Amino acid sequence: MPRDTPLLRYLQALHADLAAIDGGAVADYIPALASADPGTFGISIVTVNGTKYSVGDSDHAFTIQSVSKPFVYGMALTDRGVDDVRHRVGVEPTGDAFNSIRVDEESNRPFNPLVNTGAIVTTGLVRGDTEAAQWQRIVDGFESFTGRTLEVDEVVYASEAATGDRNRAIAYLMRNLGMLEGDPETILRLYFRQCSLLVTTDDLAVAAATLASGGRNPITGRRALDERLNEHILSVMQTCGMYDAAGAWAVDVGFPSKSGVSGAVVGVLPGQAGIAVYSPPLDGCGNSLRGIEVCRRLAGDFGLHPHRDRGHPAGVVRGAYRGGEARSTQTRTAAEYACIEAHGDDLTVVEVQGLVRFAEAEFLVGFVVDDPTRSRVVVLDGHRALLVDDHLLPMFAELADLLTAAGRTLVLAGFDAPGIPSGFDRLAMSFAQVDDAIEWWEDAVLATHFTGVGADVARPVTEQELLHGLAGDDLDAVLGALTYGALEPGAHLAREGKPADAVFFLLAGQVSVRLGTSLAPGSARVAAFGGGVAVGELALLEGGVRSASLVADTRVEFATLTVEDFTRISGERPTVRAVVMGNLARSLALRLRRANDRIRVLDR
Amino acid sequence: MPRDTPLLRYLQALHADLAAIDGGAVADYIPALASADPGTFGISIVTVNGTKYSVGDSDHAFTIQSVSKPFVYGMALTDRGVDDVRHRVGVEPTGDAFNSIRVDEESNRPFNPLVNTGAIVTTGLVRGDTEAAQWQRIVDGFESFTGRTLEVDEVVYASEAATGDRNRAIAYLMRNLGMLEGDPETILRLYFRQCSLLVTTDDLAVAAATLASGGRNPITGRRALDERLNEHILSVMQTCGMYDAAGAWAVDVGFPSKSGVSGAVVGVLPGQAGIAVYSPPLDGCGNSLRGIEVCRRLAGDFGLHPHRDRGHPAGVVRGAYRGGEARSTQTRTAAEYACIEAHGDDLTVVEVQGLVRFAEAEFLVGFVVDDPTRSRVVVLDGHRALLVDDHLLPMFAELADLLTAAGRTLVLAGFDAPGIPSGFDRLAMSFAQVDDAIEWWEDAVLATHFTGVGADVARPVTEQELLHGLAGDDLDAVLGALTYGALEPGAHLAREGKPADAVFFLLAGQVSVRLGTSLAPGSARVAAFGGGVAVGELALLEGGVRSASLVADTRVEFATLTVEDFTRISGERPTVRAVVMGNLARSLALRLRRANDRIRVLDR
Repeated sequence: MPRDTPLLRYLQALHADLAAIDGGAVADYIPALASADPGTFGISIVTVNGTKYSVGDSDHAFTIQSVSKPFVYGMALTDRGVDDVRHRVGVEPTGDAFNSIRVDEESNRPFNPLVNTGAIVTTGLVRGDTEAAQWQRIVDGFESFTGRTLEVDEVVYASEAATGDRNRAIAYLMRNLGMLEGDPETILRLYFRQCSLLVTTDDLAVAAATLASGGRNPITGRRALDERLNEHILSVMQTCGMYDAAGAWAVDVGFPSKSGVSGAVVGVLPGQAGIAVYSPPLDGCGNSLRGIEVCRRLAGDFGLHPHRDRGHPAGVVRGAYRGGEARSTQTRTAAEYACIEAHGDDLTVVEVQGLVRFAEAEFLVGFVVDDPTRSRVVVLDGHRALLVDDHLLPMFAELADLLTAAGRTLVLAGFDAPGIPSGFDRLAMSFAQVDDAIEWWEDAVLATHFTGVGADVARPVTEQELLHGLAGDDLDAVLGALTYGALEPGAHLAREGKPADAVFFLLAGQVSVRLGTSLAPGSARVAAFGGGVAVGELALLEGGVRSASLVADTRVEFATLTVEDFTRISGERPTVRAVVMGNLARSLALRLRRANDRIRVLDR
Repeated sequence: MPRDTPLLRYLQALHADLAAIDGGAVADYIPALASADPGTFGISIVTVNGTKYSVGDSDHAFTIQSVSKPFVYGMALTDRGVDDVRHRVGVEPTGDAFNSIRVDEESNRPFNPLVNTGAIVTTGLVRGDTEAAQWQRIVDGFESFTGRTLEVDEVVYASEAATGDRNRAIAYLMRNLGMLEGDPETILRLYFRQCSLLVTTDDLAVAAATLASGGRNPITGRRALDERLNEHILSVMQTCGMYDAAGAWAVDVGFPSKSGVSGAVVGVLPGQAGIAVYSPPLDGCGNSLRGIEVCRRLAGDFGLHPHRDRGHPAGVVRGAYRGGEARSTQTRTAAEYACIEAHGDDLTVVEVQGLVRFAEAEFLVGFVVDDPTRSRVVVLDGHRALLVDDHLLPMFAELADLLTAAGRTLVLAGFDAPGIPSGFDRLAMSFAQVDDAIEWWEDAVLATHFTGVGADVARPVTEQELLHGLAGDDLDAVLGALTYGALEPGAHLAREGKPADAVFFLLAGQVSVRLGTSLAPGSARVAAFGGGVAVGELALLEGGVRSASLVADTRVEFATLTVEDFTRISGERPTVRAVVMGNLARSLALRLRRANDRIRVLDR
């Protein structure tokens, strides 16, 4: 059962409203069409996400007729290439009727593939060694658009074939003009059969949504047409799809569309949805009266005119921050943090979001170039980017070169959405996540500027922040309770879910805090700590179990203080607990302040 | 000096490449045009953000000629309305030459406003009681598009006027057919003068960028044209702008454009940028050879074809979370938090981002309707939404009604971008910020479900979390040091920048933590605390100065413990410090964990 949404309600009301339209005439050039019930009326919309809305007779089957033409044109373009097809069929609108026999006098070409002359020529261009193979190609082609097996209405086919003298004349004329290869009767049979394929508005809306999705069927997920050819077809539909009055249609509705004599109209909203309507009564131009009106109403009511897109290119930059404003999950000592913060202007992280088309890329690149701090390192954080148009790779490559020439470095991080073109991450130094990029920068700053003791040099446990302020017998009591150890890379210092029964003072090396069982680099890392820092220290507060695992990234030297020993010493010496808890509270207050800073940056 | 960016480099290379194109012929129907230097070649691009790129002879002035036509058409539509203009000028493409005298035989109308017949008629439709008034209206109209004062090239004007017999014939024929009001000679003078306006490619790129921005000039920020009329003009440019071969242009380039006989071409990328080229040599159709090629190359190299837009409607939902997953800045007691978390499924917050057009609205609305938890309250957090198309108000109104009918409530928060239509926040209950909406929901949950003591009832200071675990003489020592007080709403408990010399135990009422001096509700509020909670407690750790002010929101009862007293008591009783610091560390650890949860939600 369809879900009840505002759009469904709108369509139900629109259907009820337009069902009252009288007038128009059902096509009567063959008896099988003339018998159509003028009251049958279906509307379907399928979005590029694959959501379907159907009202009225949306599962009523009818013959596709001229709505087949853009799809067969797509097959011909695929099989023969654009140039070969363009030599035989133009792309120019014509004010003539759909069944006009007139061609472009200069070139002898049909004006476009959406009038009968052009459609018969494009049918003949579909590949296949035999008539059966060509037909199979055509049916497969349609089914890739509809995602459903299609049948031919044999009565309509027989009727079309029996009464199709005008189309027969066109086919022979086309062969006479050198535009048609092969046997005209064979091609006419293929043409009449394709016009007699039975479809519903649900089918046609899926096919239209495929055109709206750059040629990828949003229901099956399979590509039905090359993306560039898809643009090509939409352009021809836009200028030639609605027979006469193409200009008025362009002004009032504007989106690419195609109508057929059985009463079908399809409309394509690129990047949004496909629309299909079926209602047999036609206006004087041969377009479905109600079909036209559905498109006009939708265009007006929802602002669907393609030139309405105002865009907001500056929205591509979500925000930007300097080094030190957001830290990597690699925890540093206070002295190291101070060094990193002192060099914060050396790094700019630019958060990229949404779709990156021409105007967004121009803004983003300009934002980097104009950045007044001229940071040595610029990280583009792409984890919120949904799409980068592949035409823009050269622009980003040029940006990387420009920065390099100025002694600066472009770094890409987190560009992994399906819409990111392959090769994008090879334009510059790349990291899977922005955290990795920031850690890389921090390491570089420390390697160049930090004059203190590095993480690889063991530090005396008395330098631990948690023990600051302890002295005399108090300090000796704690030091006497410590046990010393070392771990090789990959070994666990503590495991998630096990009792939290000790705090570890790291003396040298690096330990990661990880969630779950994965050891993949970066993937589940919550934080990392180096020498001089305590880990697992919340054990002193809460006991309970470890909320994460502690894993050695490098060889690690450490000292252990068990909760049991700490409790015992605190019982004897209350000042030990007072000093250590004060230090712990101070450290937590600092981390909370940093977390709140980060929230403010993220929540803009 | 222009900044060096990849796009500028691209344009410089393109200019150098196409400067080498030979062939074509400078227009010679009047001597003033025939004398143009065929080597002059300028390219300008202006984005909808107002960024300008210029290469070559971008400040060379030339007469605008037929590029004026869509702009004057816009003035006529503004002054007379769409229907009145449509009665006299059609919108249909024609394969005829620009100076054809042929009109639509059925209606006697010129085919469209971009051929001479149509342009002369639209010129006559511009309002003004006198010729001078009409001319002033035309000049003002152009200047609103270019943002710069324009002059007429009197030599070209005189030459056009002297040799314009064909246009004179058109004008008289139009009057004969009843399409032209007033004196043909007056209208012809206005027409020739408008064609003789001197512009540069920089000017025309700004004018084209205005059309790309829905009619708002991106440099001056002023509206030059109504948005719906702007769409109208772009549609006519798309189908009728490039004389012959409109279909091939639609397939290969696709964006709306207009060329002129002096060698200018303008192109419009809706929502992105305006393009202008000047190069006098023309092809057989009367379009600038290099101008055409610049547009083709830009379209191909940057994927500018309008049907390329694939969209990503699902990107409109940035994420969603339940009640309790993100809290308001109103701090609650542990018991209150537990109550709020137990009812978390009662609230869903949906984070909306970017542009909300038809397909995005459909997805967003479907996301709310389909939400399996069917939360009673649904908050749309719009602070990252850049634009909501005003056509979509009814869809959101319908969503509000649908939810209401199901016993649910739609709440809007933070929809305040310039692109949000007025009236949007009146579709449902609205808050300035999502924090306010969450606090409102939390209050409602507590009012209904919380069975503990409310914030308005004074609580004994012994219930304070910071004092948990103190007993006997230790507790008495602390209690003995407390002083009690009360504040009226708006009074300061502590001021930012003043010494942090005490902790305050709130007994009843509510206190806000605020940054800066503003007292506006919500604006600078960092957090809020109610009875049973300690504020300013970091004074016990650090001393120093207050990093924020504490302001009474309601009447507040509180107890004060000075740092001096705490230090004195701790000196005598180390267990007091040990217990209080442990409690403080535990509270900070909990807040840090919540902050990190929030970061994970925000950083998706």
